[in-house]
This record gives sequence, C-alpha cells and structure tokens, in this order.
Amino acid sequence: MEIREILGKVRAGEMSVEDAIIQMRLEPFEDLGYARVDHHRALRQGVAEVIYCAGKTAEQTRGIAQAMLRRGAENILLTRVRPEHYAAVRDLDEAVEYHEAARIVVVRRRPVAMPETHICVVTAGTSDLPVAEEAAITAEVLGNRVDRVYDAGVAGLHRLLASAETLMRANALVVVAGMEGALPSVVGGLVDRPVIAVPTSVGYGANFGGLSALLTMLNSCASGISVVNIDNGFGAGYIASQINHTGFVPGNV
Amino acid sequence: MEIREILGKVRAGEMSVEDAIIQMRLEPFEDLGYARVDHHRALRQGVAEVIYCAGKTAEQTRGIAQAMLRRGAENILLTRVRPEHYAAVRDLDEAVEYHEAARIVVVRRRPVAMPETHICVVTAGTSDLPVAEEAAITAEVLGNRVDRVYDAGVAGLHRLLASAETLMRANALVVVAGMEGALPSVVGGLVDRPVIAVPTSVGYGANFGGLSALLTMLNSCASGISVVNIDNGFGAGYIASQINHTGFVPGNV
Amino acid sequence: MEIREILGKVRAGEMSVEDAIIQMRLEPFEDLGYARVDHHRALRQGVAEVIYCAGKTAEQTRGIAQAMLRRGAENILLTRVRPEHYAAVRDLDEAVEYHEAARIVVVRRRPVAMPETHICVVTAGTSDLPVAEEAAITAEVLGNRVDRVYDAGVAGLHRLLASAETLMRANALVVVAGMEGALPSVVGGLVDRPVIAVPTSVGYGANFGGLSALLTMLNSCASGISVVNIDNGFGAGYIASQINHTGFVPGNV
Amino acid sequence: MEIREILGKVRAGEMSVEDAIIQMRLEPFEDLGYARVDHHRALRQGVAEVIYCAGKTAEQTRGIAQAMLRRGAENILLTRVRPEHYAAVRDLDEAVEYHEAARIVVVRRRPVAMPETHICVVTAGTSDLPVAEEAAITAEVLGNRVDRVYDAGVAGLHRLLASAETLMRANALVVVAGMEGALPSVVGGLVDRPVIAVPTSVGYGANFGGLSALLTMLNSCASGISVVNIDNGFGAGYIASQINHTGFVPGNV
Amino acid sequence: MEIREILGKVRAGEMSVEDAIIQMRLEPFEDLGYARVDHHRALRQGVAEVIYCAGKTAEQTRGIAQAMLRRGAENILLTRVRPEHYAAVRDLDEAVEYHEAARIVVVRRRPVAMPETHICVVTAGTSDLPVAEEAAITAEVLGNRVDRVYDAGVAGLHRLLASAETLMRANALVVVAGMEGALPSVVGGLVDRPVIAVPTSVGYGANFGGLSALLTMLNSCASGISVVNIDNGFGAGYIASQINHTGFVPGNV
Amino acid sequence: MEIREILGKVRAGEMSVEDAIIQMRLEPFEDLGYARVDHHRALRQGVAEVIYCAGKTAEQTRGIAQAMLRRGAENILLTRVRPEHYAAVRDLDEAVEYHEAARIVVVRRRPVAMPETHICVVTAGTSDLPVAEEAAITAEVLGNRVDRVYDAGVAGLHRLLASAETLMRANALVVVAGMEGALPSVVGGLVDRPVIAVPTSVGYGANFGGLSALLTMLNSCASGISVVNIDNGFGAGYIASQINHTGFVPGNV
Amino acid sequence: MEIREILGKVRAGEMSVEDAIIQMRLEPFEDLGYARVDHHRALRQGVAEVIYCAGKTAEQTRGIAQAMLRRGAENILLTRVRPEHYAAVRDLDEAVEYHEAARIVVVRRRPVAMPETHICVVTAGTSDLPVAEEAAITAEVLGNRVDRVYDAGVAGLHRLLASAETLMRANALVVVAGMEGALPSVVGGLVDRPVIAVPTSVGYGANFGGLSALLTMLNSCASGISVVNIDNGFGAGYIASQINHTGFVPGNV
Amino acid sequence: MEIREILGKVRAGEMSVEDAIIQMRLEPFEDLGYARVDHHRALRQGVAEVIYCAGKTAEQTRGIAQAMLRRGAENILLTRVRPEHYAAVRDLDEAVEYHEAARIVVVRRRPVAMPETHICVVTAGTSDLPVAEEAAITAEVLGNRVDRVYDAGVAGLHRLLASAETLMRANALVVVAGMEGALPSVVGGLVDRPVIAVPTSVGYGANFGGLSALLTMLNSCASGISVVNIDNGFGAGYIASQINHTGFVPGNV
Repeated sequence: MEIREILGKVRAGEMSVEDAIIQMRLEPFEDLGYARVDHHRALRQGVAEVIYCAGKTAEQTRGIAQAMLRRGAENILLTRVRPEHYAAVRDLDEAVEYHEAARIVVVRRRPVAMPETHICVVTAGTSDLPVAEEAAITAEVLGNRVDRVYDAGVAGLHRLLASAETLMRANALVVVAGMEGALPSVVGGLVDRPVIAVPTSVGYGANFGGLSALLTMLNSCASGISVVNIDNGFGAGYIASQINHTGFVPGNV
Repeated sequence: MEIREILGKVRAGEMSVEDAIIQMRLEPFEDLGYARVDHHRALRQGVAEVIYCAGKTAEQTRGIAQAMLRRGAENILLTRVRPEHYAAVRDLDEAVEYHEAARIVVVRRRPVAMPETHICVVTAGTSDLPVAEEAAITAEVLGNRVDRVYDAGVAGLHRLLASAETLMRANALVVVAGMEGALPSVVGGLVDRPVIAVPTSVGYGANFGGLSALLTMLNSCASGISVVNIDNGFGAGYIASQINHTGFVPGNV
Repeated sequence: MEIREILGKVRAGEMSVEDAIIQMRLEPFEDLGYARVDHHRALRQGVAEVIYCAGKTAEQTRGIAQAMLRRGAENILLTRVRPEHYAAVRDLDEAVEYHEAARIVVVRRRPVAMPETHICVVTAGTSDLPVAEEAAITAEVLGNRVDRVYDAGVAGLHRLLASAETLMRANALVVVAGMEGALPSVVGGLVDRPVIAVPTSVGYGANFGGLSALLTMLNSCASGISVVNIDNGFGAGYIASQINHTGFVPGNV
Repeated sequence: MEIREILGKVRAGEMSVEDAIIQMRLEPFEDLGYARVDHHRALRQGVAEVIYCAGKTAEQTRGIAQAMLRRGAENILLTRVRPEHYAAVRDLDEAVEYHEAARIVVVRRRPVAMPETHICVVTAGTSDLPVAEEAAITAEVLGNRVDRVYDAGVAGLHRLLASAETLMRANALVVVAGMEGALPSVVGGLVDRPVIAVPTSVGYGANFGGLSALLTMLNSCASGISVVNIDNGFGAGYIASQINHTGFVPGNV
Repeated sequence: MEIREILGKVRAGEMSVEDAIIQMRLEPFEDLGYARVDHHRALRQGVAEVIYCAGKTAEQTRGIAQAMLRRGAENILLTRVRPEHYAAVRDLDEAVEYHEAARIVVVRRRPVAMPETHICVVTAGTSDLPVAEEAAITAEVLGNRVDRVYDAGVAGLHRLLASAETLMRANALVVVAGMEGALPSVVGGLVDRPVIAVPTSVGYGANFGGLSALLTMLNSCASGISVVNIDNGFGAGYIASQINHTGFVPGNV
Repeated sequence: MEIREILGKVRAGEMSVEDAIIQMRLEPFEDLGYARVDHHRALRQGVAEVIYCAGKTAEQTRGIAQAMLRRGAENILLTRVRPEHYAAVRDLDEAVEYHEAARIVVVRRRPVAMPETHICVVTAGTSDLPVAEEAAITAEVLGNRVDRVYDAGVAGLHRLLASAETLMRANALVVVAGMEGALPSVVGGLVDRPVIAVPTSVGYGANFGGLSALLTMLNSCASGISVVNIDNGFGAGYIASQINHTGFVPGNV
Repeated sequence: MEIREILGKVRAGEMSVEDAIIQMRLEPFEDLGYARVDHHRALRQGVAEVIYCAGKTAEQTRGIAQAMLRRGAENILLTRVRPEHYAAVRDLDEAVEYHEAARIVVVRRRPVAMPETHICVVTAGTSDLPVAEEAAITAEVLGNRVDRVYDAGVAGLHRLLASAETLMRANALVVVAGMEGALPSVVGGLVDRPVIAVPTSVGYGANFGGLSALLTMLNSCASGISVVNIDNGFGAGYIASQINHTGFVPGNV
Repeated sequence: MEIREILGKVRAGEMSVEDAIIQMRLEPFEDLGYARVDHHRALRQGVAEVIYCAGKTAEQTRGIAQAMLRRGAENILLTRVRPEHYAAVRDLDEAVEYHEAARIVVVRRRPVAMPETHICVVTAGTSDLPVAEEAAITAEVLGNRVDRVYDAGVAGLHRLLASAETLMRANALVVVAGMEGALPSVVGGLVDRPVIAVPTSVGYGANFGGLSALLTMLNSCASGISVVNIDNGFGAGYIASQINHTGFVPGNV
C-alpha cells in the first residue's frame, strides 16, 4: 500500500492516524550512512523530491539523487547547487536541467498538473534576480504558472504600479527584496492575497547580510505578509505553491 | 460604485487597474488629523476592519471606531487592546466583546460566511496562550473554523502526536512557540499544508525577547513554514484565513 | 562685538578664522558647575537656544533656562521635557508654552522671520505623532512654515498619494516611521528634495526598539535620504530648517 | 511633453498631481527583463542618471547604460564599479572616465551648471579616501564646486582647525570617518550648515564593519547632522548637492 | 611521585590539597617559548593529551607534539587540524591517523579501557557530519563505544523514531544540529540521560554563523540539555566521555 | 502496567521501543485546556515532577499541581515561583515548602534515595546566590548531597583555592557566575569532572543581561564545560543530578 | 606578619612568591555564608576596602561592612548604593558620608596620603555627572587631588579648549561621555598622559544603553585611551589612582 | 622654538595654553594630499612617530615615512604592516627591522632612555602571540624593559602561578587573551598595578571575532583593568609605556 493511499484514507477517515504512523514507520527509508533518504516525502509533501545541496559534497549529492532515481522518483529539485554538484549529477538522467543563476538543478521526468491560477514573483532590484529565479523555478517545478515582475522597487513607484494588473491577478505572491526590503509592505497593501516576503543579502554596510531587509519584512504594517529566511527563494516558492494548490484537484497528467 | 464592485471588475478584466486606482483615490478616506480612516479597506482586504491599538490613546481609538461605525462598518477587530481602550469603546455598540487574554475587542454585528475546512492553532506551552488566542479569535472573526491544540511542545512528543489527526486535517496551521521555538519544524514535517510560525517573547535569558524563537523558525529545515513578527498572533490568524479562504465562494449570509 | 558680527566678517573675508576663534574663546560662557551655558550658540547656530532636558534634573533645567534668560536669550526650545521640567520653568517667563505630546516647552519672546517655502512632516502611523510633532514644532520655532501629513503609511498607498501635492511642494521633508520604516523610500522616490528620515521606536518584537526602522532607512534605495537617531524629531526638524533656510536672507522682524 | 515640463507645471499649480502621475505612467520605461530603465529619473531627480553596479553583472550594466545612451541620456554616473564593469562600458562613449579608487565611472557628455557655493568633503583618515572621493566626484558630476579636507581626524585637532576657513565657507558638508567616527560631531559644532555624516568600514575589531562609526554619528550631540549608510559616499554627495542647489536657478549651459 | 598518585591521595584524604598544589607547581611543565606544554594534564584530565591546532603554525604544532612524545605521552589528539598541520606531524610516529572530515589527527599508541555503556552521536543533517565525527572520534579516543545516528532531523520525525532504541540505550548523547537546531529538544524529551547539544554553523541567512542553533539549544524547554560552543565537536565528545566514565573503574589494558 | 515497568522492559530488551511508544501514547495525559499534564514524566525522567511557573497564572499553576497530586504525584518542584504562585498552592499539601530567594516551591511527600557522591555548587559572587540556590535545591530535591561554595570569584583566587578540596571531591559541579563569567574556566582547570556553567544576569552595562557571561562560558578554553541558559539554575541542578546518578541503583526508600 | 610586609618582602626579593601565597592562604578570610570577606584586600590593593552593593541586600551589605569594621578596616568605599543600603549602614560609624548622585557611601576614618599630581575628570554633558562623581570621589577616597571639568562636549569645542590647562596638567584623566562618546578621542589628542574612557548609558535610540559610546571609545584613533565598562565610574577612578600613585611613596599620615 | 620647549613652558606656567595652541597651529604640518603628516606628534606624545598602515597603500605608507625622515624623525614605528608595506619602506633607511608575526616595522635610529621598572606582557594561549608581540615590541620601541609570559591561560592555573614573581614585579601589565578572555581578571586579582586587557579575535563560533573576550574583559570583577580594542596590541603597549614612564625623567641618551 502506497503512502498516497494511506494519507488518502486518513483524510477520508478510513484509517486512524496512529495506524498510519505505524504503517509509515515500517516502510524503510534508505540509510546511506551520511543521509537518510526518505522515499515517501515526495508523495507526502509534493510532486517532486528536493535535495538541499549546500554543505553536501558532490559525491553525497550524487549518491542521494541516485538512490531517489533507483527508487522511482520522477521529479527531483536540487537547490543551492554549485557547479561541482551539477557535474556530479548531470549524467544521471537525460532530463537534467541546470539553472545556474538560480543555483538549481531540475530532473523533470514527468509533467506536473497545474492550477489555472498564477503565482507572481516580484523583485525590488536587478540584484535580487537569482533568489527570485530560485523561487520561480521551484514553483514551476511544483506545478504552477508563474508571472515575473522584476526591478520594481518602491523608489520608482510608477514602475511597480505599471504591473498592478499582474500583481492583482495572482493567487499568491513572492516578493523578493534586499537593501531596505520595503517592497512587500507596498505590494501587501495593493493585493488581498498572501504575500511571501523573501529578504535578500543584497546590499552593504548597515544591511548586515540581509538582516535589514529581514527586520523590515517582519515588522511590516501591511496584513497578509509572512517571511522566510534571507535568500530562501526555494522556501518561498514552495509555500506559494502550497497556497496556489489549495483546493486544486489535479486530473491525470 | 463600491470598491467591491471595482475590484470585481478589475478581476473580470472589465476595468483597467489604472481606472480603478483613480476611482479609489477619488473616494475620500476620512482624515481625523491623527488618523486617516480608510473606509474601503474592509471591503478590499477582508470581512472586518482592524484597529491596531498599541501606541494609540484611548481617545484616538474611540474616534477611529466611531468613524468606522458611522460609515457603516459591520465588524471591527481591535487588537493589542489595553483595558483603557476597551473602556473607551465598550459603549459604542452592544455587540462589543472583550477577550482580555488575547488583548482583543470584537464588534461583531454581522455573521460571516465560513469555509468547511479548518485552521489549526497549536502552542508549545501554556504561556503562549495569549498570542495563540489572538490568532484564533482573529481567524474566527474573519470567518474560519478553528481547532486549538495547546501545550504540545516538542519535549513531550507524545502529547503532540496525540493530536496528529487534528493537525493533519487542517487547511492551514498557526504554530505558536516561545523559548526555543522548535515546534513549527516538527509540525511542518507532519503536515503538507502551510504553517504560519509565530515566535513569542515567552522565555528568559538567551531568549532575548523572542529573538531565539524567531531565528529558529526562520531557519527551519522543514518546508512550508513562513514566519511573522514576535507575538504577532493577529498577523498569523489573518494569513491563515487568507489561505483557508482560497477558492472559497461564500453564499449570502 | 557680537558673534553674529564676527561670523559675518569671517564669511566676508574681513576677519581670519583664527582671530575669530580666539575672539570667541575670550567671550565667557557661563559655568554653572553642572553645565557650561554657551550664550553664543543661539547666535552662531540658529534663532533659538536649545536645552535637551533628558538626564537633567528639574533644578538643573531651571538653572540653565534662567541663565539664558538673564543673558538676554529671546527664544528657547526645551526638548525631551517631562512634566517636572515644565513645572520648574513655567513661571520663568509668561511666554512659556508646553507641548505635552511632543515633550517640548517653548519660550517664544520674539517672532522669527520665515522663508516662503515649506517643510513637510509626514508620518506612517498615528503612533508616530509625538516624534513628528517634536520635529514640526522645532521647525516652526526655528522659523519655518510646516505642512503635516499624518498616518500615510505605505500599506495604504492611496492615502499617501492623496497628499502628493503637499509632498511635492516641500523644500525639505521630515518622514517619520516606526515598525518597518519603509515610508521614506517611497516618499524619496516621489520628490526631488532632501528627505530627513526619522525612525521611531513604535512597534514590538523584531522591531527591537526602533532598530528595524533605523536599518530600513539607512539602506534605502531611494536617493536623497539621510537618517537621524531613533525618535530624534528635534534633530530632523533642525536639519530641515537648515535646508529650508539655505539662501534665505531674513529682513528685520 | 517632457517630465521637466510636467513637474514645472505641477509646481506652478498649472497641472494637478493626479494628471501628472497618469501622464508619467504613460510614458514608458524600458523593460530589459532584468531591469526597468527609467528614462525620466534623470529629469525628475537630477542632471545625471545613476547606475548602481554592485550585484549587477557586467553584461547587465552594459545593457542598462546602452539603453540610457540610446534614449539620449547626457550624463551617467556608474557607482560601485568593479574593473569588469568598466571594461564592459568603456567603449560605449568616448566621454567615459574611470575613477578607480572611488569605484566610479562617469559618462560626461554635457557640462552642468554649478552654484557659486561650495560643498566641503572632509575625512578623518587616509583610509577613508575612497569613500570620500565617491562623494566628491558624485557632487562634482551633479554640478557642484567641491573642497577636499582629508586626514583631519579629531585626535589631531590642530590639523582640523587649520582648515577651519574651508569648513566654514561650505554650504553643505560631507564628513567621512571610520573607526570611532567622531569627526562629524566636532565639525558639526564648528559650522552652522547641514553635515552629512558617512561612516566607513575602516577599522578592525569592535568596529564591526563600520557599526561603531555609524552608531557614533547617529548619537551625535551636535545639531545638524544626519547620516547615510556605511561607505555610502554616493548618497552623501547626492544629498549635499540637493542642499547646495537649494534655490539655485541655472542658466543655460 | 606521579600526579596520578598525588590526586589519588587527595581523593583518599591522604594528602592535603595544599600540599598537592605545591607538589604540582614544583613539577616542571616545559616552556617552549610559544607554548607551555603541560605534561601532567593527560594524567590529570584524561587518557590522551590534546593539542588544539587552530591558530598555531605547523611548526608550533610539531614542536608541541614532539615535546609530548619525548616526555612519554602515549595517546595524543590533535583537533582543528589543517592539512599543513598533518603534514608537519605525520612522521613523528607510525601510529598517526588523519581524519580529514573531522579535522582530527590521532596518535594512538596504547589501547584505552572502555566502559560497556554507549555514547550516541546524533545529527540533524548530512552537513553536520564533520562536527559529529569530531565528537565521535574524540569520544572513541578517550575510551568509549560510540553509536552514530546521522541525518535524523526533526522535520522527518519517523527517521528519528526509527533509531529510538539506539537513543534510549545511550548513557550520554551528543546531538549535533545546525540551521534551527531543534533536534536536542526532541531527543531530550525521549531520553532520560544528559544530552550535550552542539550547534553548528551549517545554514545561511538568519542563521548568523550558528547563532540561531545556539540560541535554540540554550532555550530548550527539555530538561537535561547543556550546550557547547558552535561547531565544538571536541568539547561535546569530551564531556560525553566524562559522563560515560562516571563510576567506571578500568582494569589493566 | 506502569511506565517505569515499560521502560525497564525496553532497557532489558524485553519490549520493542515501538510497542513502548504505542503503549505510552495510549495512557492518557490529562488535558486541562491550558495545559497537558503528563503524569508519566516524573516516572520517565526523574523522581519529582516539575512545574515551570513563569508565564503561568496562579490559577493555572494551582490547577496543574492539583491534577498531579490527584494522580498520585509524590514530589513536585515548582520553579520560577512568584509570591502569588506560592499563595495559590500553599494549602494543597502540608509538605509545601517555599524557598523565596531561589523562587522555588517544593512539595516533598516521599524521601528520595541519594548516591554517596556529591554535587558542588559554586558562585563567583554574592549576587549569584538566588540562581545557585535554585540549582542546589533542585539537586537536593532530585536526591543529591550538595556542597555550597559561594563568593569565590576569580579576582580573589585564594578564596577559591581555599575550597579546593570541596571542588575536587565533587562528582559534578555547577558553577554560577555573572559579570565576566570567568569562574567555570578556572574551576574546569582544577577538576576532572563535568562542570555545568550557569551564566547569570548579574552585572550592568556591557554585560547585556548576562550575554557577556554566557559568551565567556561558551568560549571556555577548559575542557569539560557545558553551558545552560542565563539564570537557569534549575537546568544546571537537573543535569548535575543526572550525572551524579550515573550508575546509581537506589534501594527502596 | 602583615600582608603589607609580606608583599614588601616579595618585592624586595626577601621572600619567594610561593611562600607568600601559602602565607596568604593561611590567613583566614571571613566566610559569612553569602560572602567571603577578604580582610587583606585593602592592604594588598589599596588604602580602602570596597563593597560593590548592586545585587546585594541591605542586610548583606551591612553584614559585610560590619565584618570589615570589626576587623579594623579604616576606610571603606561602598559603590552602587541604593537608599536602603545607606539606611542599613549609616549608624555603623560616625564617619559615614552619603554621596547620593554618585551612589557612593564613604566611611573615612583615616586621612590618606596624596601625591602632588592631579587626576582630571571630564564629562561631555550634564547627564554624565553621576558617573563622573563616582570616579572623582573614588579617586579622592583613594588619595588623589581631583580636578573636575564638566559639560565640555566636542560639539562646543571652545568650552573644552577653555579648560586646556587643567587637562594638560593632569597626571591621569578620566573622560566620561554618553551619546556618541567622542570626547576621549579629542582629549586624547590634546594630552600625553593615559586617558581612562568611561562610556555612559546616557542617550536614547541607537545608543543602545551605552553601546554606542562604548564602541566609539574602543575604536578611538587617539593613542593612550583605554576603556572600562559602561557607567563604571568606580573602575576608572581606581585605575586613574593607580596611575597617579605610580612611584609615589607616601610618608606617615 | 620647538614643541618640546613650548610644552615645557606650559607645564612650567611660563606660557599660556592659548598661546601654545596658536603657536602650534602656526607650525606647519605637511599635507601630502592623502595624509597630513604631523611632525610634532612624536615630540608631543612620545619618542617615536607611528604610522598605522592598515587601509593605506604601500605608496602612501612610503610617502609618509619619507616625509617623516626628511623632517628628521629619529624613530618610526609602522603597525599593521603587510609585506607590501615592508617592501615599500625597507630601503628608506638601514635601520629598518621587520617583525613579521607582530606585523610591525621599526626604524630605530636613536637609542631610547628606559626606566628601570618592567612591563609584563602575558598571553592566554599560543595563538595570541602576534598581538602580544605587537604590544611588546611597541613598548620596547617606546623605551621599556619587557617581560613575556606566554601561554599561561586560566585553565592551567599552575602555569600562570609559576610566573607569579614576574607578574608581581611589573609596573604595568598587558594581558592578551582570546576565546573566553578570562585571564585579565585572574591576573588583576594577583597584582596591584594597572592591567591593560587586550581581547583577541582568536577563537571560533560564539567568539564572534573577539566580541566574547572583549565583553569578558569589560565586565571584569577585578579592579584595575581597562580594555583596548580587539587585537589592539599597539594601543596596549603604548598605554603601558605611558604608565611605566610616569615620573620617569630620562637623562641624555
């Protein structure tokens, strides 16, 4: 019995959570010594498995990806990829794509169903682009239509307002900003959908590696804004996808 | 023409955003000198108007609430209420309720439509209760069914697991924790829906007024977790409501 | 020979700076033991003398004010006034006015010449009002016409844009904001005159007593923004006045 | 109709702000994908367009500069330039000058009108020179006469006092200091014009990358001092120019 | 008379502490100029001598190790070893082993007695492995049986629970975690033995070099948790060994 | 079947951990709404149940204590007790003792078995006494013999050395210090047993509420030192007890 | 044999340090339980004994003072005295004087020999007076002639220069400043004697309780400046006295 | 008339300070554009001129040194020297010595008179050696006899006590320590002379680049300790020299 089924039964009330947990504990994850590869997470939490590569050697990354593919993973998202990680996995499958600016490698072997609604990714400046792309590509891989509005910081309000239609039609927004990080507050006041704010480490001096933008966003006086870690484009794309998939029932793909 | 209509037309593509913005600028907000009361915000952003009372005098608070009621506001949520604020508004309407622990006053003059799905509010400890109630009551006022799981911190895992069914059925979760703030990571690993993490200032010493829990939550290795300001129960309840209302089309109430 | 004359001669090249410094050192300040009252500062640096009352006892404050009046001071501005300071000086002159919210006492015995141009003081929220008033009253006492635009935070952009004309006609702007402190960036993008940004300690949690707003303002991506200390309304009003008086040649008053 | 005209009319009361904003929104900025190049900013905010190069690739920088030149920009200031940025733009125009220490590239195709009054740039030490030059060159490009007083820190007061005449004749001052950052307080006490204080990251240990100097300047007990971000020579030069141009009406050049 | 004997007598009450201190002061340590090599520490505090190599040159490290070996040291543990340190000592003895990931060199010339009970070293993620190995190898060198449970972070609770037996049988635990550092709280709630928590610098953004994990662990609501410095695997392994040796009386080896 | 038995069987290998966890989950904790009282924790983790009173109302505290007593708890330790907490529980049992300086209430209804070995609690100064007493009384309630060495800071080394015998005979040490927090390093160099370091918030200025002492202790160059939260006397006493009970097999009491 | 003699012999080379330490350890300090009163410290380290009262109860303070007087102490300095401390000791001796602003109580029963040279205590502002008086009175009690130059901050340089003679004749200087803390740098550039800089917590906002002034002083570019803790007037007065007594051989008094 | 004479006259009361200041202002310093070389500082403040090289180019350094030598400087101390600085000055004089570990270059052309008393430089560990040598060589160049006690940290108290005689005979002490920085407190309790504490950036993790040691030293409970910036060996050596020269009247050399 697959996890997908188990969870379905729990939601349907046909199986107790207790039984489900026991059930899940019995299904082995794979222990590679340096990593415990959880072959159910993709099923439990999304349509793709994720490998966070920062702090992992190229060999470890390759080993984990191999284990996933061996066990039938269809889509894999590798984040915080350095060139040596890409070199180590590029030959594992022909569907490997490398997004260098976004530091992402995608193994996309199966198309993913997508809701009609959009996610909008906005940046304050040009330098925020790599983090924004990490969010946008993550959201796309997880099955979302993504609009991009880049370099629309608050000091040039007309450049932001020019994209107001795009902002307003979004079902969830990822707003990426470094330096003073004021953009989410302004966007949050224009829309009535959740805004995931991503502070970036872009800036210098009293920016303190993104602390400035982080604090700004946490203190936003606009409602509907929540914040992820500095430069965490992946996390923001993931949450925006969760929100955009709310109530979405995919057909077969 | 009401804002609700304007926005509906924008979404439907029947009105340009530009025209809408001009339209909205023409409709006067009310300038009380010390506050600019925006009579459209409720329409634009939710089913209730919100007054954040911290830093406002009792007189200012009363003045703003009065202006809102005068202009036909049906539901008002006053947050960060001190007793003198309550005293200043209690006679404005017979529907005034005071939730002292949550520091909230609600003026509920009209029932609000609610989706069938649930929001779950979880706390790590007993001391996190006031912030949790701020989130829970906010979500209820904005039209949501709310489950409460309190005092289920990670150091007693069985107490958390005992409520696994409640956690798993939620459409959005608010997880409130002070001290080390580890609960959202554990909950985030158990569910596949967005978790709004709320650090609280509960703790002492190296807690530094909630900084410890805040950093923990921002650095969570679980996916799907975003964070609001320390003690910001209102913000978390608001976002959870936005998520839970995704795709929800209320009938007449 | 008065200091005003001395400085005039220096500017006119009629006296060497060296001689001026020696000249000034010879003119005695008054040493009260706990304070060295500089009877020339008003002449050198503005049209009113300033007493910063925080950390001074009521007795010390009265002593300094008395010394100033005894030596012919015409206008005095007391800042960071607590009620006991006011009580200690209220009978010193009949021109004593107390601005309680702004924590200011003014002794205005002589009208001050004013340029035609305006200073605009803007706040993000209602709670920023005391600091804004400190700036506004300071600017007025130093001889300026002041426009006030209060509660125009970035989360409700239309409330700010509604005052665009007032912002744009200002010769210098003081922008006061707590919480995320984003307002100066937006205002700075709308105008082409210097913006003095004043972070306030309004907020809670990750605001850290105004640190959040301070960092935001220092990292502003808009040009033309400089920052003063948290809650330093006086400083901002003073600088705005300096800028507004640039090139201003008062006639007799 | 040019923006310059539009703004002129707004100031003259001949056009409503509302109409002006709509007018400005209609004039297209150029969207390069990675950047939204605002061809009106130069007109709206100064005599030169500015490209902040940190965090931009050489290709992006070149693309933006090209777009500006294509649209008729006359003077361009590129800040935070690394050698690869310079290499990418050096052949765009024959008027390209590279100021390596100041990390600035200037494209100066049209002379700029200058007021008679001076800006004075002061440094505490030799190591503060690159930041000071960033300020000085910025001010010069924006049309100002600039005096330089370098290596005049407070520990050798006579070296500062020897330049007192230069300080006193300035219409606006930029004071640059690292380490303890005390110089603006001393200068602020000597002059009666606005001082823009620039903390630098020069120092070590408890300097914490310029934090020490930043805090010193924010807490200055001298009046008339406002602060920009650590190492932000450009910002200071820009503001000093705004102040020095107050009331300045340039003739044709 | 050896230190071991001296301390034995003190414990047995056969020698006063005063006499013991004088005795110890008389026994010379060896002064190499740059280091005072204490030939008694091994006897006083454990079964191996320790050289902390960070901040020491390769030559100094070699000099200290040589001095120890010359004076009869049997086991030496070199920590924070860089390759040049290893190169400098590899030929000093044939028993030199290099653990590169753990940055440790061991000179193991004598087997060490071990208690039957186990120490368990747990990590939250793969990236925490180097610090965990520093702890594990330290504990092994000091004479302990070590279980390793790696990559068992709280976001995948079932991976941790799968090793519950290993955790529960441990006599002391070292729990290593970066990012949010929540693992020690969860482990601390499952076991009733001391947990030594080791924050690591693994993470990014608001992790601030391990500060986040450090604060989490200090604020843990589970009892029985104490904390060592960020990345201090050695310290944790050392303390776990002290605890595991409590009451242990080794026979001859 | 009691938890004590369950755990005994797990240790003896007679029951799988999985079965034990399920078993434990079935045994109900008591949900008071505001608190989930875990009646097994005492059995699982020590000889007394603990209520952390900070952040709990007097009523909540009384409710929890009552629930524990109703279910047969024999010894209860209430920490961070304010007078109103004591007032609320003093009549619950005749064995209630109040230690005001240590902010502790003890309900001691059953004597506890104690090992022969000692715990030593040391303080640097007189002001550290309340935290030290919290540790000492905690350790005593959990069944330990405790030596106290108070006011033996490093600036008067002879006062510390005079107690060297007491330090050296301890099986585990709790070292409490505020201000610079240097005492644990010195004690750690004198003994070969684990030292639990407790920073206190005693001090002023650059002490920053205990941060100074906390950092000192985390950076200690002595081996064998681990650290708990600022002012966390309870935690230190608890861990010292765990260590002191290592290998201890109590008879019946 | 008195400690004074012992130390004399050590200096003269007539006794080994080892013997001296043993000798001193044998002479009992008095253990009051809450404090270990060291009756030799006065002899070893100065002409008066010091009780730091912060964090001590009035009873403890009285107990320590009584013990000192009982053992023949001639002069006692109590610092950080609150009124209840004074109340508790005022009747212990008729020579008790209370300096309320400086929070000091002095018991002066014997005149103290003084060098001819002076210590100069300087403050930047009036609010720094209590800390300055703590330094000044400490120095006087320890036998020094003290000059006071108060309210001579760097923003009014002529007020400082007016006291240049007093500064230059000092043998050691204590410079007390809050806010930006720039005064020691300026003074340090004027004199060639050691300057003890005392940051005070005077200020607000980005002063962060004196952190600003502390960092300024630590980063001073003037040579000869060392720093003590925020508000630590006692420490500065003590060190200044040590310096001023260098080479001083008092006759009988 | 030389500065030495001027100052002598001021001290003797034969010249007013005012005249002296004017006199000094008239004597030209040399303005190199990037530096104002003050040829009187050596005379005013010590026996050698000092060039702080960090942040200066090799060319600037050479230029300043040349200017000094040209004007007759006899001894020059260059601090924070990188190899390129040394390369740039090595041929300026045959008396150039390079102390690489201490990052110091000395040009010693004239022997300096020395008092009989000693300065003692102590370090906690081997890694603190470069900073200690910076202090020691500075003190030697300024004319002092220096004792070195290295690697005598508090965790091995007997290694410190073994050098007690050397510590006790010192007239001023420089105590250098990284990590927890506890050594100055212990040394301060053993001696009755001023201790200059130098925190170093040696350490890792919660050391935060020396912050830990800095805070420890500022909070020291021992009297007589003042602190300089992290790694500021020069500053400490300079102050120790000032103290050691107190009352010293050199003969001709």
